[in-house]
Amino acid sequence: MIPSVRIVEVGPRDGLQNEPQIVATDVKRALIHRLAGAGLKHIEATAFVSPKWVPQMADHAALMAMIGDIDGVNFPVLVPNFKGFEAAMASGAREVAVFASASEGFSQKNINCSIAESIDRFVPIFEAARAQNVRVRGYVSCVVACPYDGAIAPAKVADVAGLLFDAGCYEISLGDTIGVGTPASVRRMLEAVAGRVPVERLAGHYHDTYGMGVANAFASWEFGLTAFDSSVAGLGGCPYAEGASGNVATEDLVYLFEGLGVETGIDLPRLVDCAHWFSAKLGRGPHSRVAKALLARTKP
Amino acid sequence: MIPSVRIVEVGPRDGLQNEPQIVATDVKRALIHRLAGAGLKHIEATAFVSPKWVPQMADHAALMAMIGDIDGVNFPVLVPNFKGFEAAMASGAREVAVFASASEGFSQKNINCSIAESIDRFVPIFEAARAQNVRVRGYVSCVVACPYDGAIAPAKVADVAGLLFDAGCYEISLGDTIGVGTPASVRRMLEAVAGRVPVERLAGHYHDTYGMGVANAFASWEFGLTAFDSSVAGLGGCPYAEGASGNVATEDLVYLFEGLGVETGIDLPRLVDCAHWFSAKLGRGPHSRVAKALLARTKP
Repeated sequence: MIPSVRIVEVGPRDGLQNEPQIVATDVKRALIHRLAGAGLKHIEATAFVSPKWVPQMADHAALMAMIGDIDGVNFPVLVPNFKGFEAAMASGAREVAVFASASEGFSQKNINCSIAESIDRFVPIFEAARAQNVRVRGYVSCVVACPYDGAIAPAKVADVAGLLFDAGCYEISLGDTIGVGTPASVRRMLEAVAGRVPVERLAGHYHDTYGMGVANAFASWEFGLTAFDSSVAGLGGCPYAEGASGNVATEDLVYLFEGLGVETGIDLPRLVDCAHWFSAKLGRGPHSRVAKALLARTKP
Repeated sequence: MIPSVRIVEVGPRDGLQNEPQIVATDVKRALIHRLAGAGLKHIEATAFVSPKWVPQMADHAALMAMIGDIDGVNFPVLVPNFKGFEAAMASGAREVAVFASASEGFSQKNINCSIAESIDRFVPIFEAARAQNVRVRGYVSCVVACPYDGAIAPAKVADVAGLLFDAGCYEISLGDTIGVGTPASVRRMLEAVAGRVPVERLAGHYHDTYGMGVANAFASWEFGLTAFDSSVAGLGGCPYAEGASGNVATEDLVYLFEGLGVETGIDLPRLVDCAHWFSAKLGRGPHSRVAKALLARTKP
């Protein structure tokens, strides 16, 4: 049996949320359709957050209406609270994602409550989701370090991941939000979390701020993870380091896993085409090295 | 005991050789002195090749005269033949590097002879080097794949590495010249080579064309390698993929190894300063993600 991994494309949400220029809704729709055309089966489409917080996501309902259904493709959407959950349901979403931080400082600064309070706020979402047969994915941010509190103890990440898992998340996505992890710190974190949540329910969500995204994904795969989040073209950036890289690029992960003999179900040339097309819409080249190298090779 | 690795900085040679704009000799000298100031103890300074082949290296003798001696820092220089070796000796070099390819096609297209013939041509260099107590480092190129012949058999890499080692090289640097390797193909190659050359005499020389440089270094370190080649700021490019990345960036490797708890002897902030200073001389930003991220963080 050929081993396989599941890639969750987060470019339209996590990537775009960190891009300064507002992208038109029909361009987002085209991006999502091209991603689906390249074989991505899990595409986080948008966030039902307040436009005051994230203007880029203000068109969430309109975008969901434009995307429509694509057979076999999930479009999870981020929801910060029950109001967002209700709006997501009204838009036809069938999967939502909730988020908590492994850092108290980050939780306080970002959502103005403790980690425990932030998870309590999701209880109505979990109840409603269960009743409506909607899947809930959980993000944990700052799994290696926090821009305010510094290094985060692996046991703390395990606690938060465990709480979200117990509450009903089918998968916990472990986010190195500021991209400072290396294979050593990521593995220490995974060892702790795997004692609390089965490894097959964990996803690696690594940012490439310090160029470690691919190496951290590799180390995590060796550890046993088979789900990874990434952004086409390496979309996005880091709000804590202006000019730095964002999510690890989907192309780079696909190239890695193809090299490891691991099936992703993704058509790399089509994905690279999509990366170049969308980067051009943003008026620049893709951040992904694979996209740059493959474009160079296909030049006449 | 804290484990340590030895980083061989190849930016002034392998990096600059693939940069289109000619850099003034005094700027190269300043680059090399700044690299030494950041703690690098092995800096490949230039190549004694014909200016017709590589105009960027035409100032090799003048540069060597300008660098002078720095206590505890080696300045190996690349020599393609005995004439180059003699010129290197006349310039005061105390270490040279020779190169062979693991690909017959690459050897024929680049130096117009077979691999075996290319190694035979180095016999006078090894003899003279031994007599003059000069160290010889050996490069093997195309250790994963070749732009002409495609995939290269690991056994072939082991053969070529073994021939260079037997001939007198103190270390064999294994070059993924076109940067297509992943941890899987790199490990298969290392397993074959380690059957022929002791692992402590091997160095990983990885290009970041497809963004795998850091992951390949990590996998090689796990395998047992403790020497790695890299270029400050990710200098250089790939002559087989225009616009693509060059050598893995020294900053990125230093960040990786610091994260793994492995000593490099290199001062990362000073190295990042050097990367920004030199990239500005080339009229652009550094290719290294670590350099970008650390600059962003130190902005007022």
